[in-house]
Amino acid sequence: MTEKEIPTQWYNIQADMVNKPMPLLNPANHQPLHAEDLFPIFNEECARQELDQTHAWIDIPDEVRDMYKYYRSTPLVRAYGLEKALDTPAHIYFKNESVSPVGSHKLNSALAQAYYCKKEGVTNVTTETGAGQWGTALAYACSVFGLELAVYMVKISYEQKPYRRSLMQTFGAQVTPSPSMSTRAGKDILTADPTCNGSLGTAISEAIELARTTPNCKYALGSVMNHVALHQTIIGLEAEKQMEMAGEYPDKVIACFGGGSNFSGIAFPFMRHNILEGKKTEFIAAEPASCPKLTRGKFEYDFGDESGYTPLLPMFTLGHNFMPANIHAGGLRYHGAGVIISQLLKDGYLTGVDIQQTESFKSGVLFAQAEGIVPAPESCHAIAATIREAIKCKEAGEKKVLLFNLSGHGLIDMASYDRYLAGDLVDYAPSDSDIARFLKDVEPLQ
Amino acid sequence: MTEKEIPTQWYNIQADMVNKPMPLLNPANHQPLHAEDLFPIFNEECARQELDQTHAWIDIPDEVRDMYKYYRSTPLVRAYGLEKALDTPAHIYFKNESVSPVGSHKLNSALAQAYYCKKEGVTNVTTETGAGQWGTALAYACSVFGLELAVYMVKISYEQKPYRRSLMQTFGAQVTPSPSMSTRAGKDILTADPTCNGSLGTAISEAIELARTTPNCKYALGSVMNHVALHQTIIGLEAEKQMEMAGEYPDKVIACFGGGSNFSGIAFPFMRHNILEGKKTEFIAAEPASCPKLTRGKFEYDFGDESGYTPLLPMFTLGHNFMPANIHAGGLRYHGAGVIISQLLKDGYLTGVDIQQTESFKSGVLFAQAEGIVPAPESCHAIAATIREAIKCKEAGEKKVLLFNLSGHGLIDMASYDRYLAGDLVDYAPSDSDIARFLKDVEPLQ
Repeated sequence: MTEKEIPTQWYNIQADMVNKPMPLLNPANHQPLHAEDLFPIFNEECARQELDQTHAWIDIPDEVRDMYKYYRSTPLVRAYGLEKALDTPAHIYFKNESVSPVGSHKLNSALAQAYYCKKEGVTNVTTETGAGQWGTALAYACSVFGLELAVYMVKISYEQKPYRRSLMQTFGAQVTPSPSMSTRAGKDILTADPTCNGSLGTAISEAIELARTTPNCKYALGSVMNHVALHQTIIGLEAEKQMEMAGEYPDKVIACFGGGSNFSGIAFPFMRHNILEGKKTEFIAAEPASCPKLTRGKFEYDFGDESGYTPLLPMFTLGHNFMPANIHAGGLRYHGAGVIISQLLKDGYLTGVDIQQTESFKSGVLFAQAEGIVPAPESCHAIAATIREAIKCKEAGEKKVLLFNLSGHGLIDMASYDRYLAGDLVDYAPSDSDIARFLKDVEPLQ
Repeated sequence: MTEKEIPTQWYNIQADMVNKPMPLLNPANHQPLHAEDLFPIFNEECARQELDQTHAWIDIPDEVRDMYKYYRSTPLVRAYGLEKALDTPAHIYFKNESVSPVGSHKLNSALAQAYYCKKEGVTNVTTETGAGQWGTALAYACSVFGLELAVYMVKISYEQKPYRRSLMQTFGAQVTPSPSMSTRAGKDILTADPTCNGSLGTAISEAIELARTTPNCKYALGSVMNHVALHQTIIGLEAEKQMEMAGEYPDKVIACFGGGSNFSGIAFPFMRHNILEGKKTEFIAAEPASCPKLTRGKFEYDFGDESGYTPLLPMFTLGHNFMPANIHAGGLRYHGAGVIISQLLKDGYLTGVDIQQTESFKSGVLFAQAEGIVPAPESCHAIAATIREAIKCKEAGEKKVLLFNLSGHGLIDMASYDRYLAGDLVDYAPSDSDIARFLKDVEPLQ
């Protein structure tokens, strides 16, 4: 694909959805929020994109597209090696987002968010990161556009993944383990439990609090939000053109699922044809069995963070106080699904599947040996779901076309592979009573 | 560059050299070696390529080229970000070999060597690795062609870089720290010094010994040898076409230097025009100040390994018993330069420069912030040399075109960046008397 063919617009699926997403609500009075209500937290352009249910196509600013050209288009690869290893009649394709300079799809939205902040005169940015992919991407994006970045990194990741921290520091970001004593939200949690390992929900609370209390500072989020899903559609838009060049169209589109950023990115451009033209492509979101909001969560208004600083979001959730097990795919340890995805799941446009971490790593090792790329532990979930489908094809003797998103590489996550290869990893899923306990705090709205 | 434009032949500079490389010698009788003499160690095709001074162009086998297509051509990138950060009038280009699935240029030769082994009915392969880039590449290549691989990894790297080890294991290789008790060479060294940290020279001895004593097993080397330089010319051949597409020709071509694999790869196709057409391009090999064979070594016949298992090679050397300091660029810790490079250095076709490790990491961090890619500690040496040239251009107000090879990324080397950022790294260069002591064992031949 030449530079000229790289898309010039993102795709906003909200405009085409049959049932629009329900509004975000102000937790104080349960009134629908307007873009202006989000300005204290997010940059103004992203706040507007968040609530835009009208425009299906949104221009990518030239400054962002110029940076995209550094690493896009990313390759669409026919996984001949994996097909051979599985002896399947399925055609397996993957979109390789791991070739971005920071090693994952997260850069697609980080560049956009950093650019809008810069354009609006913001000087400081805060965010949280779990596995570290998002923090890394935003650290580089802020370096590109000359912004200061403070990252709250979930404490267990900070300790388990010192090299992710070094990577963010190499790109010039300041990194603090969360919960920390630097915010009220963090202090409250540490006072109650000084050994707390942290969670994405807590780190989000800390970052939002810092943004609210620092002059000229905005918060940036790497998943869940509608504007993030929007920016990520560059993945699927490219994949659509590339599949056409390969002369095929996917029967199934598969991605791993944390808050929805990479799933939305690869899926929405293809799902558009299901909505508008009645195509029957299947969409499969692979979530970890330890954090099963799509397969076992409840559709309710809930907070996006631990401390209740965000608006109320209509979403599939396990409860904003849900503490996921310490599985080795930190990027998927989040209690809720994005608002758009949640509505689409309710309306039957996608299916969630849950994957245990040993199946996930086993699939990742098979993929690495067959294709030469060590996938991120998160992406291993997509590979596991793809392998399940490829085996079904073999059993049924069917030639289906499968497309999955390789959201990132796992080169900074070798410690997790090390533990898997040593046989140290165990599977885990919450009991029904665990799930019920956290969901109890999520009150149905009237 | 389209798939069709990916080169179909490698370039063998031996055929065009004015002064041909001197012969490899049998250490027992100082007689020139023939290809057959190398068959017990290397696969036959590589042995023939090693001594081929006749054919300037050698066909890339289809099976190897099909694998190249997975990741080639690699991007030629104009480093606008770095130019801006340095405020230099120079045009800086880099060839990005870090996008190969294993993260470095090493795969270019690993695929070729594994393919030839497979074709000749070999079932087992052995090698050594220092930083781990070569071991990783060969592990993946052996996985592709269905060969068993045993890697001797320099012990200090094995301990400092557990994730490199995991990566090779993920690709299915068996990894042993060297010196080990599994070979006579290793036993001798461990008996004399049980705490020995190992060196590339020792690990090579162990791998060669294993190859010689194992049925149907060949040894593979990732640098130094002429056939490795040959396979790596794919880098420069692509770069030549890509520079032409960019409408420029390099005034200076720069690469880091360990044994010569990535330097030869980027340099030889351009150097061809110096030899044949009198072009005046400058070639700069950036070596670590702690292991300065090009700038302070001696041109003599010496062994390629610690135990003297290799033929005698005519090369710039610090002595085969030279123990380089534990700098954080394991891939450059080798006592000698390849035979072709050594002759070309003697004949004035290239210049060596030595770089201290703190200057090297400082340059790497600047590059990461400007370009978004964290370079391998080895590649940082090339970046440091490039930055020196770019600053000269600024001072002189000259618009020179600089091209360097980004041989690999540093994502598995974040521990080294961590130590650099913490201020823990010190500079080191051997004293003249250190160098004289090791060179004493290298006898000039009559």
